[in-house]
Amino acid sequence: MPAPPKFTEYVDKNANRFIQRLADAVAIPSISGDASRRNDVFKMAQFLENHLKSVGVTTTLVNLGSHTMDGQELPLPPLVLGRIGDDESKKTILIYGHFDVQPAEKSDGWDTDPFTLVVDEKSGKLIGRGSTDDKGPVLGWVNVLEAHQQLGLDLPVNLRFCFEGMEESGSEGLDEFIEAEAKKGKGSWFEGVDAVCISDNYWLNTRTPCLTYGLRGLTYFKVCVSGPARDLHSGVFGRAVHEPMTDLIALMSKLVTPDGKILVPGVEEMVPGADAEERKIYTSLDYSIADVENSAGASIALSSSKEEVLMGRMRNPSLSLHGIEGAFYGVGAKTVIPAKVSGKFSIRLVPPQTPDAVNPLVVSYLESEFAKLNSKNKLELECLHGGKPWVEDFKHWNYEAAAKATEAIYKVKPDLTREGGSIPVTLTFAEQLGVNVLLLPMGRGDDGAHSTNEKLDRSNYIEGTKLLGTYLYEVGAIST
Amino acid sequence: MPAPPKFTEYVDKNANRFIQRLADAVAIPSISGDASRRNDVFKMAQFLENHLKSVGVTTTLVNLGSHTMDGQELPLPPLVLGRIGDDESKKTILIYGHFDVQPAEKSDGWDTDPFTLVVDEKSGKLIGRGSTDDKGPVLGWVNVLEAHQQLGLDLPVNLRFCFEGMEESGSEGLDEFIEAEAKKGKGSWFEGVDAVCISDNYWLNTRTPCLTYGLRGLTYFKVCVSGPARDLHSGVFGRAVHEPMTDLIALMSKLVTPDGKILVPGVEEMVPGADAEERKIYTSLDYSIADVENSAGASIALSSSKEEVLMGRMRNPSLSLHGIEGAFYGVGAKTVIPAKVSGKFSIRLVPPQTPDAVNPLVVSYLESEFAKLNSKNKLELECLHGGKPWVEDFKHWNYEAAAKATEAIYKVKPDLTREGGSIPVTLTFAEQLGVNVLLLPMGRGDDGAHSTNEKLDRSNYIEGTKLLGTYLYEVGAIST
Ligand SMILES: [Zn+2]
Ligand SMILES: [Zn+2]
Ligand SMILES: [Zn+2]
Ligand SMILES: [Zn+2]
Repeated sequence: MPAPPKFTEYVDKNANRFIQRLADAVAIPSISGDASRRNDVFKMAQFLENHLKSVGVTTTLVNLGSHTMDGQELPLPPLVLGRIGDDESKKTILIYGHFDVQPAEKSDGWDTDPFTLVVDEKSGKLIGRGSTDDKGPVLGWVNVLEAHQQLGLDLPVNLRFCFEGMEESGSEGLDEFIEAEAKKGKGSWFEGVDAVCISDNYWLNTRTPCLTYGLRGLTYFKVCVSGPARDLHSGVFGRAVHEPMTDLIALMSKLVTPDGKILVPGVEEMVPGADAEERKIYTSLDYSIADVENSAGASIALSSSKEEVLMGRMRNPSLSLHGIEGAFYGVGAKTVIPAKVSGKFSIRLVPPQTPDAVNPLVVSYLESEFAKLNSKNKLELECLHGGKPWVEDFKHWNYEAAAKATEAIYKVKPDLTREGGSIPVTLTFAEQLGVNVLLLPMGRGDDGAHSTNEKLDRSNYIEGTKLLGTYLYEVGAIST
Repeated sequence: MPAPPKFTEYVDKNANRFIQRLADAVAIPSISGDASRRNDVFKMAQFLENHLKSVGVTTTLVNLGSHTMDGQELPLPPLVLGRIGDDESKKTILIYGHFDVQPAEKSDGWDTDPFTLVVDEKSGKLIGRGSTDDKGPVLGWVNVLEAHQQLGLDLPVNLRFCFEGMEESGSEGLDEFIEAEAKKGKGSWFEGVDAVCISDNYWLNTRTPCLTYGLRGLTYFKVCVSGPARDLHSGVFGRAVHEPMTDLIALMSKLVTPDGKILVPGVEEMVPGADAEERKIYTSLDYSIADVENSAGASIALSSSKEEVLMGRMRNPSLSLHGIEGAFYGVGAKTVIPAKVSGKFSIRLVPPQTPDAVNPLVVSYLESEFAKLNSKNKLELECLHGGKPWVEDFKHWNYEAAAKATEAIYKVKPDLTREGGSIPVTLTFAEQLGVNVLLLPMGRGDDGAHSTNEKLDRSNYIEGTKLLGTYLYEVGAIST
């Protein structure tokens, strides 16, 4: 059952107003990672609550307490919860999204002010921080509800909303809230939820809509090598003492090969190879080497095989070296021997890998490689954070409904994808609520979330709004 | 001919006033590397000129023009030149020193305010930024002249002074001035100079005075690996593209072994090994493993052989890895794949190595190692700066005079040392003026120049003032 035609017509007719709504949201620089912008995150919570109320949603702001950032105690932005519909004959869908954004400054290399939504009529791009991650998708739901309210249409499902303001800064307080509520069972805020829908990722390319049923996990390490009591002059101490940087670079060079193979013994071996049937999944996806290279902005794909690149991103673990804390990082030439340096790297995990299974292998490998260096410096290893990978059953009615909705709006079957990144709340919902979770992206693979000139295509915003609404009708039409 | 007893008596009697003079100088935060302190460097030039004038020196301030720092056009601090004495029957000694200092903030880990000289009566330390590097030695000369003026003593030599305010920031403009003056020949400001004396380094240990006749050279490299057009998300791109950090760390790991051996083919081979006779030089120096380990603050000496450690510092090349520009350097966990990363390393050079001889070896080695990685990223190499090593004839009368003066003041023969670091102006004077250059240190090996809690021992300042004066008498007494 597709959505009633007057719904999609309403969306088209009101497209410019919906874009203005997005512009109003983008204008609030709700950067959760910047202490000086914390008030704007609160302002954005208020903005969102007001919009939800105005389209008939019953809202609650949940105070999550405070946390410490940059040495300051800061209040956490509230969760914005909402509910509309309590019809026991209908399914209940929980919607998640976030209203905080990544930092952005014009000087980072933006062509326009990041917090002024630019509507580029020629390219059809809506350019601004948060346009695609995640204000566009969140307002997509507001647009759907407004249409129903204005048209006097009943919603085909009951809806619950959970919007947070700390997603870009570790989702502080969210997991604890979800776990505590889920434990309540009857009377829990999540009572009756049949499935979850999250719009916070992207198409694999710029052409084909997709549904996403998997995310990689993560384990993040800090490898600290220290020796001297203070930074030393390399003229005076060079070739007289063990230098921590030399040891650290030796260790970091033993983690991954230039073509991406992880060298920590046992880590690759945990993941079974792909057989011919599994490879077909990747062959069938609408993807080419040009997609990854366009989106990276350079011809640097690890392989010329589309299947290899897709498997590298979706179903194989990866290890990236992010940087070094404590070493000289400025421009120019400083001749210091740093006293204490900490290499940062992370491993993206895929089933059956978990941080608990992988971390001991990393620790014992690094310790044994360090022992081989015969250095008098000290090694300390720390796992900074981690999360398990997630893979969902994509034959569930939740996915079936989303696939039908996609065909109705985009006239094409969606690709079924796994994402290389992590959205930790996905796993929390899956584990705590025990229901199916669907990732239903609105934006394209080249949107540049977290990057400069972040955009959402006008067509993705408007057709995406229709898609979200239509998905609800398809859910409502399925009898289970 | 030692100095007249009334000179050394004067120094003892006026010690506290001399310490106050040092305190007044330390109170001026003349940090040449901090644009916001540039006025203080000018103020320090004025302070020094006033003190020189008051003790009978004819002074000139040389305007060196301007330069760009931190994106600002800044006036360069003037050279403070001085002359006293024009007796053709006497030798003429050129004195060099600098009145600028390294940056310092209490928050760097200083126990006291860096710009308030603390006289620790118990330990005998004079603690403050610039105390030993290089305000103490520079004011030592002022103290010597004041004593002669007040006592009505004739100086045994003619003196020329060249004090600069940009030593800690690349000595901008100095080499050009020296070269231009030297070219003038007759009428040059350096006309008649017979030898140079520089007090801007340190004893090898905390006990034994030394004369220094060698400095290592330097070549400093930036190894840039770039690929993506912008930083990438490691979830989305990890194991899909060639990561610049992986390539850079692989290259940096191939430069030096954990025990200090340089892996660039041909670099170690340039330097002949030490024969039994040369090893005796190092055996004879007053030094122990405890000296290097105390001064590094940890038991991290590369060898348990004193000779090996000394040779590592003085007569062998060394390679230090300083850091990476463009990678994540903060605390915490950021999962970025940096788009462009530049590793910084330097090689300390010893004769017969020169940057011209070593650089092509480094470039071709890194290029060939990068080719082996089969990466689609780009490599760019840049030599940021360099300087030749310097070794002086320590049998010259200039060293003979300094050795006699040391014996007169400290009742011990000075060690003859080479330094691991560089003082580029040394080589400029040697090459441009064609005269013998002596490094006559005032401070101890644990003074912590460039570090937190920089200090000069009271005894080194006071006996050092006597040493400088006595050196002039010994020069005057030698007939050549
Ligand atoms: Zn997001
Ligand atoms: Zn995001
Ligand atoms: Zn100095
Ligand atoms: Zn210095």
